[in-house]
Amino acid sequence: MRTWDEATAVVRHASSIAVITHLRPDGDAIGSAGAVARLAEACGTRARILVGQSEPLPEALAQLPAEVHTGEEFDLGDVDALVVCDCGSAARTGLLEAQVRAFEGPVVVVDHHASNPGYGTVNIIAPEVESTCSLVWEWFRAAGVTVDDVTATLLYAGVVTDTGNFRWGRPQARDIAADLVECGADAEALVFHLMDAIPSGDLAVIGQVLATVEIHGPVAVLRAPYTLLAQASTGAGERIIDFARGINDPGVEIVAVLKESQPGVVSGSLRSRGRDVARIAVALGGGGHVRAAGFTLRADLATAERRLLAAVHEAE
Amino acid sequence: MRTWDEATAVVRHASSIAVITHLRPDGDAIGSAGAVARLAEACGTRARILVGQSEPLPEALAQLPAEVHTGEEFDLGDVDALVVCDCGSAARTGLLEAQVRAFEGPVVVVDHHASNPGYGTVNIIAPEVESTCSLVWEWFRAAGVTVDDVTATLLYAGVVTDTGNFRWGRPQARDIAADLVECGADAEALVFHLMDAIPSGDLAVIGQVLATVEIHGPVAVLRAPYTLLAQASTGAGERIIDFARGINDPGVEIVAVLKESQPGVVSGSLRSRGRDVARIAVALGGGGHVRAAGFTLRADLATAERRLLAAVHEAE
Repeated sequence: MRTWDEATAVVRHASSIAVITHLRPDGDAIGSAGAVARLAEACGTRARILVGQSEPLPEALAQLPAEVHTGEEFDLGDVDALVVCDCGSAARTGLLEAQVRAFEGPVVVVDHHASNPGYGTVNIIAPEVESTCSLVWEWFRAAGVTVDDVTATLLYAGVVTDTGNFRWGRPQARDIAADLVECGADAEALVFHLMDAIPSGDLAVIGQVLATVEIHGPVAVLRAPYTLLAQASTGAGERIIDFARGINDPGVEIVAVLKESQPGVVSGSLRSRGRDVARIAVALGGGGHVRAAGFTLRADLATAERRLLAAVHEAE
Repeated sequence: MRTWDEATAVVRHASSIAVITHLRPDGDAIGSAGAVARLAEACGTRARILVGQSEPLPEALAQLPAEVHTGEEFDLGDVDALVVCDCGSAARTGLLEAQVRAFEGPVVVVDHHASNPGYGTVNIIAPEVESTCSLVWEWFRAAGVTVDDVTATLLYAGVVTDTGNFRWGRPQARDIAADLVECGADAEALVFHLMDAIPSGDLAVIGQVLATVEIHGPVAVLRAPYTLLAQASTGAGERIIDFARGINDPGVEIVAVLKESQPGVVSGSLRSRGRDVARIAVALGGGGHVRAAGFTLRADLATAERRLLAAVHEAE
């Protein structure tokens, strides 16, 4: 753990940096990387934002005001320093991993994942902070750099995403949000594009999955067969749990969505409001947090459900 | 329009008041009425909270820390003053309407509905404010009364409900929220109970309704037949639009949920992110706001849909 002053010094002394965030980025990844690039530019340093994957960004993230480069190959030859945002490990930088590990100049790591081992030369890692964007907001204040409307929009994208629209996170997340809205973030448009927007075809598929809900003791189980998921866009599977997590039947402690992402491969998303679902996910070869975890099994839906229920029973 | 000082004087000079809010209350109704009762008690004035309906409160609202009286008959004989919260008209006080109109003592009206004609002796009506609870928060500050954790919980319930969890409302709503969380509101539990919690049976019914989505020009239409709605709790119908409002197919400007609440009676909920749906609702005998409106027709679902689409076309 080092200080913001050291991180700022790295950025100020570089003439050009790469800002890297995790593959399959979310609002906090693009928001924090975009804001760091603006902080660098405010310091007179050129900055390029890189995501180590060949796929382009999903549309909602591509709309954020940041120029993000994806691709198969990246040239870091002209770069004096790296800032790696929201990546709990170097492996999360995807196709950039080898270059991040081999980089000889200074590497600033800014992250809020508890599992982060601190693989930078300057590591700002704060697991108690709800989003990496909240941390980058601190960085702007520490560095005395003004948060303009574009930066505010980027930072709000991360705070709103990683707090589930202020469902969790520190009380201070709301103060940061108030500050960002005052600086010009269009909160309403951001929430719509990042959290609410959905193609009608995806909604119809999700509806059919919601209709499968069954209660098995402490678990509410929803099943999404491959034949159904194949009719929706790639993001639809991840959204199902957001629609279902409010299930509150008496005695239900866990909401589980079983998604047959390929024929014979089932990934499960687990949510709870108290019970440790990470333990259950680990028992099924997965992992995650106490209240949000996941796993993947080579199995059909019925078998995956049986194994899940057995693992829940075991964990009692 | 009068000042908080006048409203505070009314409450202070009374020895007993009734705090009244609208029938079929929501989080802002119970939250604002509950908080006003606490403000009165802090001034040494007894306060009773009344809702003019015979049905008890729904479970989520009954859990809020306020003692609310419902019933067929109300005795206001020992009451020196009324405070009416979040009621755009005296009619919205339901079974209490005649007594509110005939009341001879001072009546303080605190509300944020633009249509409020100001039927009190002191009227604090602020349509630009996102929730009546935000107004009552101002009242606490103006009166110099401390917001404790119970009051903060009540006020947060209204702010979060009437901003759609900070999807809309003034930027300041976030400052108020930050203040309330610092004062002890349990935001996470409130959002769960007020906005997310759903019985699995309701979710299964809503899922089946979501699966009916069809795009007709600028309108995404969802249909909820009576046979389906009858399988869910009474609140489920109102929730459908929350699940569906994110539909963002190119060209879609309006999301419409048609609910056959009784055989042959269809109520429609309309949402838009720009287009004036109040005009369309009015043309169908209903009303509402520019971006959220509704109507009720004596018709079957197919007829209601035809009439809706014709009204949308007319309004173009």
